[in-house]
Amino acid sequence: MAQARFVEDLVDREDDVDRWYVDVVRRAGLADDAPVRGCKVIPPYGFGLWEQMVGRLDARIKATGVENASFPLLIPRSLLEREARHIEGFAPEVAWVTRGGDRELDEPLAVRPTSEAIVCPTFARWVQSYRDLPILVNQWGNAVRWEERPRTFLRSLEFLWQEGHTCHATAAEADARARQMQEVYRRFLEEDLAVPVVAGVKTESEKFAGAARTHTVEAMMGGKNWALQAATSHDLGDHFGRVFGIAFLDRDGTRRVASSTSWGLSQRAVGAVVLVHGDDAGLKLPPLVAPVQVVVVPIWRTDAERAAVEAAVDRIATRLGPVARFKVDAREDRSPGYRFNEWELKGVPLRLEVGPRDIAADQAVLVRRDGRARQAVAMADIASAVEALLAAVQGDLLTAARRTLADRTAPVDTYADLAARAAGNAGWSLAHWCGGRDCEARVKAETKATIRCIPADRPEEAGACVVCGRPSGRRVVVARAY
Amino acid sequence: MAQARFVEDLVDREDDVDRWYVDVVRRAGLADDAPVRGCKVIPPYGFGLWEQMVGRLDARIKATGVENASFPLLIPRSLLEREARHIEGFAPEVAWVTRGGDRELDEPLAVRPTSEAIVCPTFARWVQSYRDLPILVNQWGNAVRWEERPRTFLRSLEFLWQEGHTCHATAAEADARARQMQEVYRRFLEEDLAVPVVAGVKTESEKFAGAARTHTVEAMMGGKNWALQAATSHDLGDHFGRVFGIAFLDRDGTRRVASSTSWGLSQRAVGAVVLVHGDDAGLKLPPLVAPVQVVVVPIWRTDAERAAVEAAVDRIATRLGPVARFKVDAREDRSPGYRFNEWELKGVPLRLEVGPRDIAADQAVLVRRDGRARQAVAMADIASAVEALLAAVQGDLLTAARRTLADRTAPVDTYADLAARAAGNAGWSLAHWCGGRDCEARVKAETKATIRCIPADRPEEAGACVVCGRPSGRRVVVARAY
Repeated sequence: MAQARFVEDLVDREDDVDRWYVDVVRRAGLADDAPVRGCKVIPPYGFGLWEQMVGRLDARIKATGVENASFPLLIPRSLLEREARHIEGFAPEVAWVTRGGDRELDEPLAVRPTSEAIVCPTFARWVQSYRDLPILVNQWGNAVRWEERPRTFLRSLEFLWQEGHTCHATAAEADARARQMQEVYRRFLEEDLAVPVVAGVKTESEKFAGAARTHTVEAMMGGKNWALQAATSHDLGDHFGRVFGIAFLDRDGTRRVASSTSWGLSQRAVGAVVLVHGDDAGLKLPPLVAPVQVVVVPIWRTDAERAAVEAAVDRIATRLGPVARFKVDAREDRSPGYRFNEWELKGVPLRLEVGPRDIAADQAVLVRRDGRARQAVAMADIASAVEALLAAVQGDLLTAARRTLADRTAPVDTYADLAARAAGNAGWSLAHWCGGRDCEARVKAETKATIRCIPADRPEEAGACVVCGRPSGRRVVVARAY
Repeated sequence: MAQARFVEDLVDREDDVDRWYVDVVRRAGLADDAPVRGCKVIPPYGFGLWEQMVGRLDARIKATGVENASFPLLIPRSLLEREARHIEGFAPEVAWVTRGGDRELDEPLAVRPTSEAIVCPTFARWVQSYRDLPILVNQWGNAVRWEERPRTFLRSLEFLWQEGHTCHATAAEADARARQMQEVYRRFLEEDLAVPVVAGVKTESEKFAGAARTHTVEAMMGGKNWALQAATSHDLGDHFGRVFGIAFLDRDGTRRVASSTSWGLSQRAVGAVVLVHGDDAGLKLPPLVAPVQVVVVPIWRTDAERAAVEAAVDRIATRLGPVARFKVDAREDRSPGYRFNEWELKGVPLRLEVGPRDIAADQAVLVRRDGRARQAVAMADIASAVEALLAAVQGDLLTAARRTLADRTAPVDTYADLAARAAGNAGWSLAHWCGGRDCEARVKAETKATIRCIPADRPEEAGACVVCGRPSGRRVVVARAY
């Protein structure tokens, strides 16, 4: 069928996933170019997707007792430099404001690459006593990192994200909070975005600049099977507390340093949705976050047919309103086929077709974006059928993505196998690693793959490091990454 | 009563409203200092207020067919300079990024002071045919203007706001949209924030840099009776369309230039809520946007009382849940009086007190923040009483503010009276003005008051300009402004 192929010039995903990604993102209306390289305009359709994601993640975060707050965009250099490893990690990526109006500033201001350096001094003022703890805040906002190789959503100069910051009386509490937020991200990604992840811990060399421990959730992207760090949650220990003087009088009258965490998820997650679920026809959006869940495409030829079809669409709209976000596409200057293709490109989970023959049979036709299964549904059953199909699509997208992740993840026991899998974009490797920094560095230098994480849920297993042969107690995930 | 006076060191509002404002904003938890002058931290309570405001205004904006989108933070200097009056107006206020990582940039990037200069080139790409029009987008985000005399919320270096941008086939449509959004703002301010406004048009010298016409809603702040430009809506005519090349092929095959609008409301509106409704005890938040609408303060002395009161609070919470955003303040290390004062400072519209004697009478006591009227309410009626009282507070705040606005606005027929009212902070003056730029400039230079707007709803009236005596057809609003 014609509709099985999208408009001619979209490259097949498997042929050139990088070009496919750029094309789909732009043509589906997720993002558009901006005059500054690495920045982007997000048109209403793409922003609608982000709004749905924000709404669901925000609710999950608030359900853990966190409240939203706002911290300044501009951070004085001296504050950013206070924590040595932090500035070392971020300095190459900072955009600096050096002039305000007509004046040169005495001290350059960083456009925040992340906000620890301005949140922690605030916490230091807010925290006096154990009664002031914990502090649990989150910020939705923008941040800027000067990326040399930007990719829309995946690695942007400016990006929208949430960054949570918490402050606790004990190291154990901070540790628990960091793990809790990793789990919030895992569930958001899997349950809302249908993006399966491997949860684990970053190695010392891959962790956040200044953190005690970085928890991560890693997702496998389609096409090249590369990994995407979809969100991270950092246990900062009492390190930032010491550097920024976050101290409190404890119950027992002792003055103690507070422990803290930070955790973030950005618009990279939009890129993950594109790359995990998309196919040669374009996007496939998970129903729970699709800005349009059902597109209604009325079809007619004659004026008499038109009147009947429009009346039917009105009745359908009344039924759909309570159960789905829907849109009616009745454009007369576009053929049904064109409209089908366009909404498939945009990844709308369900299409509802209604024409004269459907009306005669008192039915409409529902077509799933994933797999394109069609079914006729009696008018009276449209609401329940749509609800059931949206739930089915949501579940099936996750099942399919889980299968891909499982199929393309394999244990490797030799360095040659690991290198070959990385070179061939064959998927993720589970490899024994001794824990040594040199072995990790060699893998990265020679194969461009990195240790994505030490998985949290894999059993201990004795083996030999694929690089040096020294003993290893557990396999780690090795993959190339965006 | 002790609770009629707030904690000792809050200055009376009428004595020194500037100090009162700074104190209340900080102590109520609306905003906190930041290391960069003119920037601020917004703690959860203040951000909760902003979230409620955003939710309601966003719904009003979307109800007019506008969708949200996102445009980049950084704007190349060349784009900002494209429109001469625009850059002339904004140049003194721009924060410039001149370095990215270790590199000096070839071209400085402005941190957006407003986004017309980056939205319009995007529209130019999006618009080809009349079918692409209108474009109706809005962005919630931050902007930076290098203010020399910052005041928290009222005039901040960085501020959160929404900026809407629309693009139309005809000048008439743009004109209508600009007026429509002014009306959206008027209703939001009056109906949601209980802040009455005068709607009108800015003079040529006060209008937005580059606009054909600026519509404004002006609110009177408490204390000094100064004006606050609470929101503006700009009809940009086809001016930005010409400069940025937004052209389209019309139905008749003619190539035409599109007309556009832009309109914004910022966190200044938070400052308006503080200054319009506050009193010597602190904030009074309008119930529709109060993050906490009801604070429940349980009172007990003995353990036996405590058990009974806690059980009653549980039952009350069940009743309040469906009708109000509420919080229970059961802090044992704070006296009831302290807790009363603190929540009055924070402006929570209703306090619900429950103690052993109330339980014996199967009732609770509700106390309004405005006016402090107390009433005992039977347990069974709590939900309906709270709903009714919240509506009453919302209405009464608006009525009171309208009375103040009316009482402190007066016609003046001589320049001396106008100058005296301005010098004495007596309120707004309605004065005849010939329309001349020189007369306007003299008023501003000599009295520091400015023509806030040419009101939209005042009847024509023949008179003589208070400055030069030339004929005038209508009175304008003259006032000092934040």
